[in-house]
Parts: sequence; structure tokens; C-alpha cells
Amino acid sequence: MKELLNLMEYRPSVKVIDATLRDGGLVNDFYFTDEFVKALYETNIKAGVDYMEFGYKASTEMFDENKFGKWKFSKDDDIRAIVGDNNTNLKISVMADVGRCDYKNDIINKADSPIDVVRVATYLNTIPAAVDMIEDAAKKGYEVCCNIMAISNGQESDLRAALDILGKTPVDVFYIVDSYGSLYPEQIERLAGIYSEFAAKYGKKLGIHAHNNQQLAFANTIEAVGDGVDWLDATYSSMGRGAGNCAMELLLGFLKNPKYKPYYAIQFVEQYMNKLKAEGVVWGYDLQYMMTGQLNQHPRTAIQFTKEKRTDYSEFYKEVVAQD
Amino acid sequence: MKELLNLMEYRPSVKVIDATLRDGGLVNDFYFTDEFVKALYETNIKAGVDYMEFGYKASTEMFDENKFGKWKFSKDDDIRAIVGDNNTNLKISVMADVGRCDYKNDIINKADSPIDVVRVATYLNTIPAAVDMIEDAAKKGYEVCCNIMAISNGQESDLRAALDILGKTPVDVFYIVDSYGSLYPEQIERLAGIYSEFAAKYGKKLGIHAHNNQQLAFANTIEAVGDGVDWLDATYSSMGRGAGNCAMELLLGFLKNPKYKPYYAIQFVEQYMNKLKAEGVVWGYDLQYMMTGQLNQHPRTAIQFTKEKRTDYSEFYKEVVAQD
Repeated sequence: MKELLNLMEYRPSVKVIDATLRDGGLVNDFYFTDEFVKALYETNIKAGVDYMEFGYKASTEMFDENKFGKWKFSKDDDIRAIVGDNNTNLKISVMADVGRCDYKNDIINKADSPIDVVRVATYLNTIPAAVDMIEDAAKKGYEVCCNIMAISNGQESDLRAALDILGKTPVDVFYIVDSYGSLYPEQIERLAGIYSEFAAKYGKKLGIHAHNNQQLAFANTIEAVGDGVDWLDATYSSMGRGAGNCAMELLLGFLKNPKYKPYYAIQFVEQYMNKLKAEGVVWGYDLQYMMTGQLNQHPRTAIQFTKEKRTDYSEFYKEVVAQD
Repeated sequence: MKELLNLMEYRPSVKVIDATLRDGGLVNDFYFTDEFVKALYETNIKAGVDYMEFGYKASTEMFDENKFGKWKFSKDDDIRAIVGDNNTNLKISVMADVGRCDYKNDIINKADSPIDVVRVATYLNTIPAAVDMIEDAAKKGYEVCCNIMAISNGQESDLRAALDILGKTPVDVFYIVDSYGSLYPEQIERLAGIYSEFAAKYGKKLGIHAHNNQQLAFANTIEAVGDGVDWLDATYSSMGRGAGNCAMELLLGFLKNPKYKPYYAIQFVEQYMNKLKAEGVVWGYDLQYMMTGQLNQHPRTAIQFTKEKRTDYSEFYKEVVAQD
């Protein structure tokens, strides 16, 4: 389903989602300055980005508000302090994790909230809980995505069963999530084929969230858009957990819709992202993430390796290869 | 022509070519220590790499030997000082540039040389000179590749004409070279289709040499192998001009032929490549290379930007977008 001869055209249904605060927040415990967040918001508007994800709606019962920046909780008032009434084309999203979000209380009616989209993140084995969250968010008036995480470790038959259940809910978008950065473009094509079957059956849209463990986050994202996937996650400078995500500046340079303006993405990277790196916030492709990606493992061992500032990569290789 | 369901298998005709000294030499003027080169040679043997490119056969009339390390000239005696009689499975290659190599004199008969393969690098507008070099090298007993550079800037009809001429020579391998790192996997697929036509017609093999300007060197290389391309260039830590090349450690982790041993690649990166970086040798993906790649331009402006240690990326963007 590649759009081989259509690289010069664009598909108006394609949407770009900036996940810098949300996935990037995983590497700095969500401690972004308000100046950074405001500049990011302004950049997204100027660059033509379609959605900006502010962070997680994490339960304040489960997580100590003193141990994280505010975007782990993404309270409506904090969002409003940045965006006001958000009279722009940029829509606002938050992520709600199954089992870690007090959604009945913390997600209020859309009519009273600056948020436009709720993205429900689930594993294959928590689909019924995700369904409950999806129904709650849809009833409250939100656009709803369902991000099925870690599918590279799941069974294809379970994935089909999950999509068939989700198809019957009011969810708007099914997301392919390569949590471990282990998938190759050929596998994205196959997965997009499966997702497309159910998207067609139930009238849903598709999205992709890629990780850069094997330097394939951008490649997998453009593979997916060629396969009919419309919602594309990206972060400035690839900022995100471990090896990070698809780089916004690469993606906006690739997409041909004239509403996207890569210049503003480059300017933001120059002024803000490179400063974050210089200040010592660490993310991005490195050997330890490559190895867990190649082995289709959760990156937690690689994140630990990074935190400990280890450089004995070959020793680490022996550790992760031997894991069972 | 993707090998969608064959990711678990391998094609025995696939060859891995280590181009670290040759393309990497472009960023340190070929000043590698003998210790480095010996360790690289030993690593390639242990890792199961098929070919090791030592460097260029540059003309000593045209280039001052005092201004470059020895691998710009790759004299047979210097190679022999590293490899002895090279009684191993690792074959030795050198690159000969059209117009910059005194091949009649500097490339001797294979029977008297440690070199196995001569890779002739040409542009589309110097094909007749390349043909002369190919015939010379083949007559002397070498395996011969022809690397057609900068094809992202060429006309498809010229490329077809060139392949039709080259097909009639004794060249063994046609190389797709993405000199500017500007090609997307979909374009690699199309180009591989054109190359395959002529490879089939004349009984030639195909190769790919990718650059990482858009973080697509690895993605384009695995796209190509799925499209029937057998000779795959890679460098340790992606070391190469500008944004560098396809990383050896990514490629060996992807290929399923059990003769490839990624552990030794990781060990070499840990012990040698990271040291080079720490010593201040600069290469690899960065915004300035992304921009020239996106714009399908020669990276020379980006290399200059890097040399001048500029960080005004958005200013640079305005400079390169305006180029004509």
C-alpha cells in the first residue's frame, strides 16, 4: 500500500502530534519551565502542527506531586495557564494510562476543559480497562485515541481480538506503538495491514508512535504514512524515553502539506532543545538502546545503564543477550 | 520486491563491506593509527564482515602525501603491513575515483597485490572514464564495483543510459550511492527496480552506499536488501563524511546470517570509535546535514557549518533554502 509515486503530493487527513512534553517528560520527570512550554506551544502553532500533547493525566493518589513536574498530571488549570482559551488551530491532547489515571474525576467534560483529545494508553492485556476509559472520555465529549503499547511483544491473534473489541467502542484512532523500538519498516507494513482491516471494518483512523532504538523512528513513521496511517507522533530533537522518538524536524521536512513550516521546528531545536541537552538532560540513540531494540526488550535495562553512566557496552550486550 | 515474510531467513549472497577507513577517512584526513587499523581488521574478521575497504587510491601527483594519512593513497605495501598475506575470509577493497587516481600505474596486477576488489567511483557525467578504469582493473584480475555517486541529482534516463553502458563492461557490481543522504526508502525501492532491470540483463550484482543525513542510512540499506541488493556498505559508529553512513552495529544486528557476530562490532565501537569521538573527531547526524539532505544538496555547506562550530541552525536553514 505504499504511495510510491505520491511523494510529491500530500494527504490532507495526515495529522502531526507533538509528544515532546509527554514522552520527553519521561527523561526529565516532566520538569519543563513555563517559558519552554509556552515557546513550544507557540512553535507548534507556527509550524502547523495539528496536536500538542501536554503530558499524562496521572493519578495524584498514586504519584507524589512533589516528585514530578506538573506535566505528569496535566491539570486543566495548568494547561489553561499556557494556552488561555487556545483560539488557534492547534488542538490539545493528554495521555491517560490504564491503571494510573483517576479518569472518572480528573477528566472533566470537554465543554469545561482546554483539552480536545484523550489518548488512552494500554497493553494488550488491559483492553477492558481501556474500553471503560475510552467510553468515559467519549461520553465527556473528547476525541479519543487508543495507543496499544508493546505490540512487538504481543501475539498477532491477540492484537486482532483487541482491535475487534476496540472497534466497537467510540474510539476514533487506533495507534501502532513500537514501545521497544524493535520493529523494522517491513513489520510496520504488516502491522498497518492488520490495523487497516479493523479500521476499515469499524470506520476508525490509524496512528503511529515510534521509538528510535534502531534509528528507525522516522523511517517507520514514513513507512506507516505510506501504508495509510494518518496520525503521526513526533518530538522535537526526538526527545523521549530512552532512544527517543521520531524527530519533528525530520517529519515536517518530509511532509509536503504546505501548512507545515519546518523552519520553526529548526528554530525551536536551536533555541530550546539543544539547551536542554547542554544542561545535561540525556536522551537519544545510543548502543545500549540499539541492543534492547534489536532484542525486542523493554528499554529499562538500557535506561539504567545510561543513568549509571556506564560505557562498557560489550559487557551490557552479554547481559541483555542472556536475559530470559 | 520486499521479502516481507523472510526476515527470519537470510540470503547467502548478501555481503557486508566495511567502509570505515575510506568514508570515515574523509572526516579525519585519513589519519588513523596503525593500532586502530589493525584492530579494525581483526574486528572485521571476527565479526564475519566480508570486505574491508582500506581507503582511496588517490594520485600522489594530485594530492600531497604530507597533508593526508596513508589511507588516502592505500599503497599495497601499507595494506600488507596490516594484513600480511591476509589468509582470512575477509577480502580487501580500495576505492578509485574517476579523475583522481593514477590507476594505470598505482593499481598493479592482482596476483602481486593484497587487494581483491577495486571500487570505481564516478558521477553520471564521467561514465566513459569509469569504463576505462573498470576495464583496466578487470584485466588486472580484480573484482570490480562501480559506484555511481549523487544519483539523487541525476536524471532517470541518464541513469538508465549509464547502466546500459556499464552493463557491457566486466564490472561485477552496480552501486546505488545516496551521496547527499536525500533519498527516502520509497525512492530506494524505485531505484533498486531500475538497477535490477540492468543487473538482470547483464548478469551483475547490486550494492548500496547510504548516508545518514535524514537518519535513513540503515533504513535505506535494509530497504535495499529487501529489494534484492546484495552488497551493503556500513561503517562502525556510522563514521563517514558529514552525517556518516549506515552503522555496522545496526546492520550486523539486523542480518540473520549466523556468520555475522554483532558482539565484536559493539566491542570495537566501545574501545575505538567512542575514543575517536572523545578525541574530537566529529561526524554524524545533526540538523545542518538533515537540511542539505532534505534539500538534496551536496553536504559541503553543512560540513563548513560544522567546521566553523556554528550553532545558528535556523540562519543556516535560510542560507541553504535560498541556494540556487
